[in-house]
Amino acid sequence: MEYKYELTIDKLLQSGVSSNPDQIINYTGKREFTFKDFSKRVNTLAKALISIGVKKGDRVAVIDWDTYVYLEAYFAVPMVDAVLHTVNVRYPQDLIYYTMDHAEDKYVIVRDEFVPILSKNREAFYFIKGWIVYSETGQIPDSLSPKYVYDDLMKESYSDIELPQLSENDLATTFYTSGTTGIPKGVQFTHRQIVLHSISSGLALADDPINLTSRDVIMPLVPMFHVHAWGVPYMSIMSGRRYVLPGRYDFDHIIDLIDKYNVSVIAMVPSILYLIVTNPNVKKIAGRGIKAIVGGGALPEGLANAAEKLGITAISGYGLSETAPILTLATYNERVKAMPESEKKKFRLKTGIPIPLVQLRVVDDKMNDVPKDEKTIGEIVVRAPWLTSVYVKNKEGTEALWRGDWMHTGDLAVMDEYGYIRIVDREKDAVKSGGEFIPSLVLEDAISSCSGVVENAVVGRPDEKWGERPVAFYTGTAKPDEIRKHLIEMVNAGRIAKFWIPDDFINIKEFAKTSTGKIDKKVLREMIKK
Amino acid sequence: MEYKYELTIDKLLQSGVSSNPDQIINYTGKREFTFKDFSKRVNTLAKALISIGVKKGDRVAVIDWDTYVYLEAYFAVPMVDAVLHTVNVRYPQDLIYYTMDHAEDKYVIVRDEFVPILSKNREAFYFIKGWIVYSETGQIPDSLSPKYVYDDLMKESYSDIELPQLSENDLATTFYTSGTTGIPKGVQFTHRQIVLHSISSGLALADDPINLTSRDVIMPLVPMFHVHAWGVPYMSIMSGRRYVLPGRYDFDHIIDLIDKYNVSVIAMVPSILYLIVTNPNVKKIAGRGIKAIVGGGALPEGLANAAEKLGITAISGYGLSETAPILTLATYNERVKAMPESEKKKFRLKTGIPIPLVQLRVVDDKMNDVPKDEKTIGEIVVRAPWLTSVYVKNKEGTEALWRGDWMHTGDLAVMDEYGYIRIVDREKDAVKSGGEFIPSLVLEDAISSCSGVVENAVVGRPDEKWGERPVAFYTGTAKPDEIRKHLIEMVNAGRIAKFWIPDDFINIKEFAKTSTGKIDKKVLREMIKK
Repeated sequence: MEYKYELTIDKLLQSGVSSNPDQIINYTGKREFTFKDFSKRVNTLAKALISIGVKKGDRVAVIDWDTYVYLEAYFAVPMVDAVLHTVNVRYPQDLIYYTMDHAEDKYVIVRDEFVPILSKNREAFYFIKGWIVYSETGQIPDSLSPKYVYDDLMKESYSDIELPQLSENDLATTFYTSGTTGIPKGVQFTHRQIVLHSISSGLALADDPINLTSRDVIMPLVPMFHVHAWGVPYMSIMSGRRYVLPGRYDFDHIIDLIDKYNVSVIAMVPSILYLIVTNPNVKKIAGRGIKAIVGGGALPEGLANAAEKLGITAISGYGLSETAPILTLATYNERVKAMPESEKKKFRLKTGIPIPLVQLRVVDDKMNDVPKDEKTIGEIVVRAPWLTSVYVKNKEGTEALWRGDWMHTGDLAVMDEYGYIRIVDREKDAVKSGGEFIPSLVLEDAISSCSGVVENAVVGRPDEKWGERPVAFYTGTAKPDEIRKHLIEMVNAGRIAKFWIPDDFINIKEFAKTSTGKIDKKVLREMIKK
Repeated sequence: MEYKYELTIDKLLQSGVSSNPDQIINYTGKREFTFKDFSKRVNTLAKALISIGVKKGDRVAVIDWDTYVYLEAYFAVPMVDAVLHTVNVRYPQDLIYYTMDHAEDKYVIVRDEFVPILSKNREAFYFIKGWIVYSETGQIPDSLSPKYVYDDLMKESYSDIELPQLSENDLATTFYTSGTTGIPKGVQFTHRQIVLHSISSGLALADDPINLTSRDVIMPLVPMFHVHAWGVPYMSIMSGRRYVLPGRYDFDHIIDLIDKYNVSVIAMVPSILYLIVTNPNVKKIAGRGIKAIVGGGALPEGLANAAEKLGITAISGYGLSETAPILTLATYNERVKAMPESEKKKFRLKTGIPIPLVQLRVVDDKMNDVPKDEKTIGEIVVRAPWLTSVYVKNKEGTEALWRGDWMHTGDLAVMDEYGYIRIVDREKDAVKSGGEFIPSLVLEDAISSCSGVVENAVVGRPDEKWGERPVAFYTGTAKPDEIRKHLIEMVNAGRIAKFWIPDDFINIKEFAKTSTGKIDKKVLREMIKK
């Protein structure tokens, strides 16, 4: 029988260890692991998971900040042929529950801080067979059962347990996205998809002006529950890069980490970059030639300029939860390379050029490519080796996503003669604040439950800090403060997240409607344009 | 039906074109193509191949120097689901015929200069259905039929021809290697293997001291018949790098090309680097910070030093024809990165560390890993997503190659604590001169046919310029000049290549034999050690 090499996640870890055994993973300044030692820990965790009963295909959820435990789970869970569910901890309690139930999670790795929000609802989690709890303080909460203690599991040797053979088309990860307006949709990725995304994105980042190489120290500031932190952990460890985990985001501390550990490449949404460049301590890291990959929203020129004054070169990237995520990066191609520095900057702010293996088109509604005139708007459709093949248990959504065998991003863009695309609008009505989608349908539903509200609609208003902030329009007799108070109650009940609460509530007489009778949000957006 | 992304060679070309449409391919200073135009030419050639009858699985041979025609065939042949056979033009006529017959070639793309050696033997090529001849002088030789003229084929539009759907596991390329002592063995690679090799090797080359990026201009000086020119053409075009094709190797001209087109990265065997650094014109390109990837034989320290004086940073790479080829590169990992420049150099001369996705072990004869003590010698065995699964029509060879589901390289190495391997010897008896294996069995057979030779054996003698040169030992009454004359006749008859003729013929009384009665070549090698 012929040997077949499977593109599986264990190979990523092995590659990092064999080429760079002494490379370092630093956890928020508190702990350091060499790749060699980290790999041993991952193997122990994998065997521990088997020892407590985790089986092929079981969904194992992680509820955590960006910690070494999360990173261990990134590898260990797929390595036992289970499926890593990276739970969005910024969801309200209700949606956390909804996604865990929908994913059919069986085991959960959870940091002590998150235990209380899970314990409130213990009976509802009847489907969970084991809670693996960890704490950095040594105080393990006792309210969940059956309970395992992470550090205890990591003490054993499991010498009689062997890791399973993996196939590249086995599922490795799943998570939920509120990419559209409705309730979260599950996406899922195979081992093969993650391996291919890792090597291709790593290769694309070698280009200017990022020029990622073994000299760099990487710290993604993209939550690890968010599309594999854009794949940076897998990519970095595979290619032996020094890696810093920020833990829970605290921007004073993050700047200290960048300073102390010479972090040279960061990745984040625009609002996080904003929080860094406006932090009073940012001078500490000025003038070091840090490179920032900015995605999850357009990179505003003002922000890029502010970063540049601090010696931070920011470039755009683009992708979706559905696309694992990287599709494009605004690196310099031959034409841009030859331009003066001031011209190049314009291209860094564009959405970018496709990374290797991505097939990207901007098409009209008959699926014809639009001309490369930087004017004609079309939808971005893509093919790549790392796109979710389905929305979990959602046939209709899947069919819409993949109509005509191209993945429809719902993003509207123009293309220039140099091959760069620039997103000009989203087809969908979602509001994106601080890189997180706010599901407007869920929010509108919450607003509608306030007495005195007849009709309502939420749209995004451009915001320097957050990219967009929600604004609610409504008809009826309710006062803005009443609605706000109502929504705070819903936050406390775990129904919505606090950052979803609209900045403004605007009472109007009547909504303009589209031909199909829906509220015309374009009109509303026009009304609040600055 | 779910859309499945196939890892096929057309995607490499599309990636280069979509991210970098105006990038340039320069053919030896004579012609230039943008990626966009090159892609159109490839599509035309592909359709032309279909128009003359090329079908899925047909072997299409190319006999050429490193030209734009070759590069077009690299893409176009696999894109019609045919198999590109890159014929070794340094083989004697007999072996060229042998490999084309063994591969069952059906079509041949051939440069005018090579037509005469094929025409001698026309009837023997009964299996060839079409010869596609091209000439840069416009003088198309008429001695082969059925004959097509390349430039004529490229003039048509073929608007009614569609390219086939490709599967990633379809064969894309095949070629022959004299890696061992015997007659050439065929290896073969699928689309998937070549795509994965391209992205992984590109990623590995991003590391120091090569640090390959979009700024670089690449000119491989590895013949295109030789393991896909180490995969550099596929890798470079996929990632949008500027690419220079040297044509037929002429070192004065090559230095001019480096000078004129600012070539910054070259790749070659040690003897080619030797020819460059000793060329009287090399001063033209001194001090430019050129980077050289050196493989196909150990990189001697003296040569690396000579290169360094010219500002050329040379690093080792390692691979086999069987491995597509790259397995390791001597880039700097975390430990080496921290060393002073003088220390780093030692590591650049080692065989290297595995590139992403390569699993490489140094094992004893019970398949246990040897300790990383830089002393214990073991055989290098590998797994990677780009290894030939078979020797063509050679079950026994395939089984030996893949025993225990690891590919056995036959190369003996030690490993250090930093993860770097260093090859110390080859298990096999082959002689390697100027990066080309000389099949000693074939050569010994030729020598034995000289009257007055009783027994004979050929071994390699270390050589500053060529790496190794063959030396023949023999018993009997023949005089060295008689044997040399006999071999020259065999060169003229196309039985052996001229560069195979041993530098010395040493007459001895008797051969030392091994326990199994074979000539003990170790003893002979000792005798000629300098």
